[in-house]
Amino acid sequence: MSKKINIAIIGLGQIGIYLYNELNLKKKEILIKTGKSINIVAVSAKNRNKKRKFKINKKIFYRNPLNIIKDKEINILFECIGKSDGISKKVVEKAIKSKIHVITPNKALISKHGDYLSELAEKNKVNLEFEASVGGGIPILRTIKEGLATNKISKVYGILNGTCNYILSEMESTKDTFFNVLKKAQNLGYAEPGNPKLDLNGYDALAKVKILSSLSFNKKISQSKCLMEGIENIESKDFDIAEQLNLRIKLLGITEIVDNKLFERVHPCLVKKNTYIGNVGGVMNAVILEGKPVGESVLQGEGAGPGPTSSALMSDLLSILRGNIKYPFGISQIKRKQIKTYDVNNYVNSLYLRFEVKDKPGVLSQITKQLAKYKISIQRLIQIPDNLRKKASIIIITHNVKEYYSKKCMNSFKSNKNVLKTPVLIRLF
Amino acid sequence: MSKKINIAIIGLGQIGIYLYNELNLKKKEILIKTGKSINIVAVSAKNRNKKRKFKINKKIFYRNPLNIIKDKEINILFECIGKSDGISKKVVEKAIKSKIHVITPNKALISKHGDYLSELAEKNKVNLEFEASVGGGIPILRTIKEGLATNKISKVYGILNGTCNYILSEMESTKDTFFNVLKKAQNLGYAEPGNPKLDLNGYDALAKVKILSSLSFNKKISQSKCLMEGIENIESKDFDIAEQLNLRIKLLGITEIVDNKLFERVHPCLVKKNTYIGNVGGVMNAVILEGKPVGESVLQGEGAGPGPTSSALMSDLLSILRGNIKYPFGISQIKRKQIKTYDVNNYVNSLYLRFEVKDKPGVLSQITKQLAKYKISIQRLIQIPDNLRKKASIIIITHNVKEYYSKKCMNSFKSNKNVLKTPVLIRLF
Repeated sequence: MSKKINIAIIGLGQIGIYLYNELNLKKKEILIKTGKSINIVAVSAKNRNKKRKFKINKKIFYRNPLNIIKDKEINILFECIGKSDGISKKVVEKAIKSKIHVITPNKALISKHGDYLSELAEKNKVNLEFEASVGGGIPILRTIKEGLATNKISKVYGILNGTCNYILSEMESTKDTFFNVLKKAQNLGYAEPGNPKLDLNGYDALAKVKILSSLSFNKKISQSKCLMEGIENIESKDFDIAEQLNLRIKLLGITEIVDNKLFERVHPCLVKKNTYIGNVGGVMNAVILEGKPVGESVLQGEGAGPGPTSSALMSDLLSILRGNIKYPFGISQIKRKQIKTYDVNNYVNSLYLRFEVKDKPGVLSQITKQLAKYKISIQRLIQIPDNLRKKASIIIITHNVKEYYSKKCMNSFKSNKNVLKTPVLIRLF
Repeated sequence: MSKKINIAIIGLGQIGIYLYNELNLKKKEILIKTGKSINIVAVSAKNRNKKRKFKINKKIFYRNPLNIIKDKEINILFECIGKSDGISKKVVEKAIKSKIHVITPNKALISKHGDYLSELAEKNKVNLEFEASVGGGIPILRTIKEGLATNKISKVYGILNGTCNYILSEMESTKDTFFNVLKKAQNLGYAEPGNPKLDLNGYDALAKVKILSSLSFNKKISQSKCLMEGIENIESKDFDIAEQLNLRIKLLGITEIVDNKLFERVHPCLVKKNTYIGNVGGVMNAVILEGKPVGESVLQGEGAGPGPTSSALMSDLLSILRGNIKYPFGISQIKRKQIKTYDVNNYVNSLYLRFEVKDKPGVLSQITKQLAKYKISIQRLIQIPDNLRKKASIIIITHNVKEYYSKKCMNSFKSNKNVLKTPVLIRLF
């Protein structure tokens, strides 16, 4: 690698523009740390004249990012567009094929096309780095690939979506509704203003889980359907009950090896208030790794926003500039095998269920009968009447139950007219 | 670097022997991850025939480690003897001069001679790696050097000594005496059986603080005298009072830049129970970094023992095998400047003071008068009589007070015959 390094930034949204500024600010420091002199020679976005937080050099602006690769000699390209397909994938593909190192925070792209792109990078002897795709500023991927390199990791779990964690923390402390808190999160820039769905339904966290699994267990990225549940149906009353039980609601992403099979999932959990994970509040992300011989390791940090993301992108840049050509997933593509998927139907857990029902005689008995039919035994039951609306909430904590039965049982309530809404189900952690 | 790598392990104590076994177990994995085939070609310890946890190959045993460097072609040497001077320093020095990469968990060596050895390594173009010297299995140094590479770090603090954290946690939960809990810690292998002094008096944590400062602020290792206080004088009654105040006692290591000067310190602190740091119990280590743009990052993991230490040593090995020749302290030696030391006398803080006094009239007034003389104002005062022994404990929480005055004031009690012991002083965090 020569001493002068040409850089292109594709995408000038919140992250791209922050990175643009950071790179310019830290040229000297980068030179001191790596001996390389960086220069941003091209940027690309949809709109050239959009008002941005930092001014860009319009002379190096391109509307079509693919032209940059054609026109200029680029050493390192930052893809900051987002989305798993379309132009972002095309740019990354073309860059790698042109022997350009690629750095991206795009978890959707990596969790979907990571194996293919990684193979391409290996073939073309360039780096494909994606530290910023998981855990914001927490250098979690680097820690798994390098810091804990020879550990046998058995389980990784944590809070992987800052938006959801903010909403859950805020709903708990303010007793406000999901809708109001979501609006607040959007105003603060924690949630997508247009369509926050991918954060709220667990998709974003699951993409991160898939990347974590793949690195932790040295396997190909799993493309199978996983248990994925979001936080959209959680209401204030769930927090009230959790409080009574000394529990807290968190959206967790979990990946582990069970019976030599991969079990990945994202869903809300009830965690004990006095545990570590129960005390990670706000937009924080936290990842807990269980490995041998290291034991339990915890990493926590700000999970979102241009600052932390930029910190991770810069760490990727420095790694490349220091000449660390590495396999994107820590080992060569041919050594990364497929792994079988654990059948979620066998998953056994204790559940929190909330039913919204008509307040009339016999309803409770209908519910308990149905639970018994599916071998679900009750540990605790709380009924809260809403006399004004002639409704009631029935909250049930179950003993351990197989996913297979709980799923069937929950489905069976769809046809019950006394049950007014889809029951809320939260797993006890 | 050729494909075959010869390794020597110097020191076969708890850590050396565990590492010996790990290296043999993970040869294949290391080959897959790095393309290098490692081979332990020499080991050295005082006693050849000592009973060890794993059997060693006696054919490669040396009594004098310096002979290994003379006799064999070594690529990477692990120094696992410990201590800042003597044979450990000699071996490391000679190895580096012979163009051998060195990996060591020896914090005493690095905090004292790190600058000199790092310069030597840079001159000889070899790595000097010491991830295991701080935070056991937590890859904290790698995180600062790489994961957070371009952040401006302003403060690093945490629980850096697992032995002390275990003792404090255990004293709190069992109400047992310092002496008994220390014995228990020694039986469990958490504290040195012979001389645990360097753990208990804060020396070990301070060595780690010095390494952290140097990496975080890109400066030379400070050799100045620092505020260093251990946990030897803490008694059960301090935990009782802490409990009443909803606080917890932790030994913290702290380094920060104040007025462009370096302020390093290790001392017991009273922390709030509901904070993150207040909930790190047992032998755990935890480090909190404040940086820009990343925000606050937290790393937590098992801080001691051969498993976690070995995990860190292996990460250093893989870094070298992947060909990452790097400056030991992240930047070139000539770019690492000296930094001025903050005058601890200016440090302002609220204090917890416990006086053991004769229970007779006028003593309390003597103490409060003395405090007033040194401009120390009282926020809270608790007096606990011990009628049987005609003694009393006087506990005082002060308002903010300058270190200069509190030191003078505490010294002034030495000549007071009514004060039976050196007062206990714990800083509020």
